[in-house]
Amino acid sequence: MSRTRGTRERLVVIGGDAAGMSAASQARRLRKPDELEIVAFERGTFTSYSACGIPYWVGGDVPDRDRLVARTPEEHRARDIDLRLRTEVMELDVDGQRVRARDVDSGAESWTSYDKLVIATGARPIRPDIPGIDAPGVHGVQTLDDGQALIDTLTGTRGRRAVVVGAGYIGVEMAEALINRGYEVTVVNRGSEPMSTLDPDMGRLVHEAMEGLGITMVDDAEVTEVLTGDDGRVRAVATRDREFPADVVVLGIGVRPETALAKTAGLPLGTHDGLLTDRSMRVRGHENIWAGGDCVEVLDLVSGQERHIALGTHANKHGQVIGTNAGGGYATFPGVVGTAVSKVCDLEIARTGLREKDAHRVGLRFEAVTIESTSRAGYYPNSSPMTVKMLAEHRTGRLLGVQIVGREGAGKRVDIAAVALTAGMTAEQMTALDLGYAPPFSPVWDPILVAARKAATKVRSSM
Amino acid sequence: MSRTRGTRERLVVIGGDAAGMSAASQARRLRKPDELEIVAFERGTFTSYSACGIPYWVGGDVPDRDRLVARTPEEHRARDIDLRLRTEVMELDVDGQRVRARDVDSGAESWTSYDKLVIATGARPIRPDIPGIDAPGVHGVQTLDDGQALIDTLTGTRGRRAVVVGAGYIGVEMAEALINRGYEVTVVNRGSEPMSTLDPDMGRLVHEAMEGLGITMVDDAEVTEVLTGDDGRVRAVATRDREFPADVVVLGIGVRPETALAKTAGLPLGTHDGLLTDRSMRVRGHENIWAGGDCVEVLDLVSGQERHIALGTHANKHGQVIGTNAGGGYATFPGVVGTAVSKVCDLEIARTGLREKDAHRVGLRFEAVTIESTSRAGYYPNSSPMTVKMLAEHRTGRLLGVQIVGREGAGKRVDIAAVALTAGMTAEQMTALDLGYAPPFSPVWDPILVAARKAATKVRSSM
Repeated sequence: MSRTRGTRERLVVIGGDAAGMSAASQARRLRKPDELEIVAFERGTFTSYSACGIPYWVGGDVPDRDRLVARTPEEHRARDIDLRLRTEVMELDVDGQRVRARDVDSGAESWTSYDKLVIATGARPIRPDIPGIDAPGVHGVQTLDDGQALIDTLTGTRGRRAVVVGAGYIGVEMAEALINRGYEVTVVNRGSEPMSTLDPDMGRLVHEAMEGLGITMVDDAEVTEVLTGDDGRVRAVATRDREFPADVVVLGIGVRPETALAKTAGLPLGTHDGLLTDRSMRVRGHENIWAGGDCVEVLDLVSGQERHIALGTHANKHGQVIGTNAGGGYATFPGVVGTAVSKVCDLEIARTGLREKDAHRVGLRFEAVTIESTSRAGYYPNSSPMTVKMLAEHRTGRLLGVQIVGREGAGKRVDIAAVALTAGMTAEQMTALDLGYAPPFSPVWDPILVAARKAATKVRSSM
Repeated sequence: MSRTRGTRERLVVIGGDAAGMSAASQARRLRKPDELEIVAFERGTFTSYSACGIPYWVGGDVPDRDRLVARTPEEHRARDIDLRLRTEVMELDVDGQRVRARDVDSGAESWTSYDKLVIATGARPIRPDIPGIDAPGVHGVQTLDDGQALIDTLTGTRGRRAVVVGAGYIGVEMAEALINRGYEVTVVNRGSEPMSTLDPDMGRLVHEAMEGLGITMVDDAEVTEVLTGDDGRVRAVATRDREFPADVVVLGIGVRPETALAKTAGLPLGTHDGLLTDRSMRVRGHENIWAGGDCVEVLDLVSGQERHIALGTHANKHGQVIGTNAGGGYATFPGVVGTAVSKVCDLEIARTGLREKDAHRVGLRFEAVTIESTSRAGYYPNSSPMTVKMLAEHRTGRLLGVQIVGREGAGKRVDIAAVALTAGMTAEQMTALDLGYAPPFSPVWDPILVAARKAATKVRSSM
């Protein structure tokens, strides 16, 4: 366990998924094995996989698990990354610049020293602390192993009633997956509407559309117990006043940063329990430790405050930035605007920036407008309706956020707003945006332009 | 013809399509009939229609002509706009603040005075001055009347061979329309590749894809004559060294600003023969004359020079700005970045900003990169390939342009680049854009981000 290896430095990576292995790969691109040794610890058996793809694998759109793996352990090893699977890091000794890792199978432990460290421990799903939560038939969908366990249950179970707990992205995507597998699906949701990442008026549209897809939507309902049958398996989900029969239960409640290791080591955590980094993704106050992916908080460029967002696209960017910096280059991750897009069957849901309550919380006064438009020219076949809500700051008119609910062609329009938010544009400026127009692609006024015009007018008239 | 009408002003509009009637409608919203009289002259019989929709009407996607009319003459008149159809303005007397209009049917002429004038005379299609160009069976597709005449020909003609002259937007969209009607289609194109609004390397992809759709693509070929049969109808199109049999010929060569009236009146025209306006769409040097739509030149925000772009979405924005200003409000049209999107069957084609030759022409040195990616996560069903080309300025890395050729989901991604261009972002800044990600919508690195990363790297390495 000596740290002296001549001039060769050692980079240790904790966590073998998107952020960690992107960092490792990028550092390897910049530094040869004789300059930089890279050791990566992963407590599971997979690396670099798309957790976001699990609902589509469960639902049958993706035929097999291997398709979700972007790079296998063998591929990483072929690039001179010393990858240690089923090896969990139990302790981080910051002063000693070393980590204590444990072989999950043998229980053997050993210390590994580092010159540079990357923490990419990800997130863990929230599991409500209620009776029956660990019963067979209750599944999270965070890892490939989780996904495999759920598929095994679905394959081995005769009943066709599924309850999804939670109506955020994971919840609604799992509802689609189970519908696609022929299940009767009930979504039980604590909030007043599904998709609490939207304002409730937009969430209402999701509620209605999901009901239209044959999904039973139960809002304002907290699950109090998972009820089991004589065989010990789940048979129903109980809320305060009702019971919902269930042959399988999927937990889609969200995740929290997996930062117990970092917390014990005394590294700085934010209000959401995520690691706090600087713009170069270095853990604040630590020259040689970087962190990225689902275990960190990110700066929200619109609110000016840190948020926790577990999303593969951020994790990959973080990894790229970390690997560049750890490899001796220079890169930064300036922050996010909070863009997310999802779908439930043919319903597309997207958002970026602040919701009404976010704006209130950070002291921003705003004008909100909602418009109805279509994905294509109204006269063009398969033109489908979409609703766009836009928030612009009172007086300045600066764009604060956009939410979209619609069908084909609705979701990715949020990118227009995401770039405009990043650039600090006003609604008035957005009315002049030169967006792509042709009848198969857009009405002559793109829905985003229609919303911007209405928002700009409201800002002016309220001055 | 007295100009004295008490305090009531008169706004005269020349041209009853998108720009003109949007201006009239917006002015009417702001000023009541007892404050502002609005007289609009239109030499045809339709108002406010989508010329961009004509290919889809001809091709059968749009069932009838009326669907393309956004607002009928009756609807305009119901809003107290004195609309005079089949009335052509023959002369503009700027000093006298009056126009001389001629009733197309009776030939009667009269002068109408104005306090404020809007010129929205549109564009006229380019017709090569070659033998046979006026033969029956040769059609332009600029107006609804043109579209109707073409449909009448297609319906009344037994042969199924069509030649489209020109391979720009109109040409390729008409090729799709004719394919959809069961024609054997040949596209004869003067340029080295179709879609000269793209760089030739990207145009090549369009060439190949269109051939894949069964369209015969003839590049580097100038039409020298339209050959007619004994019945006087078109029978073939001749180039210098070949003949292409044709039962119908569609001209899709492009348009020029219709500014003869304005030129004779001494109004300022640019190098493309379009009217020159200021940011409020006022004709330069004229307090009370505005111009918009296909008859004006617009400022290209990337090159800093004026261009002529005939596109309904610009015309509508111009009309909105003009109507606001003519109605006593305030609005501006800051310029364009040159965004355009089109499709040929399932092939999507998009561009924004500068091509290589545009950058050369205006003295901008650049790095160009081309990448291949997919519309969705690679493992998600119906993920389709797309090619993205990006130009960034040498040294500064400022985005200069993006071109995209792909299938479903490719085209509207150009909007991301359009907003980034408007905001003056660099490729490096774009690599951090928070774009919507979920497997059905995008790979974890959106194709635009992949291109931006490659461009940023090339800019850095060439410094």
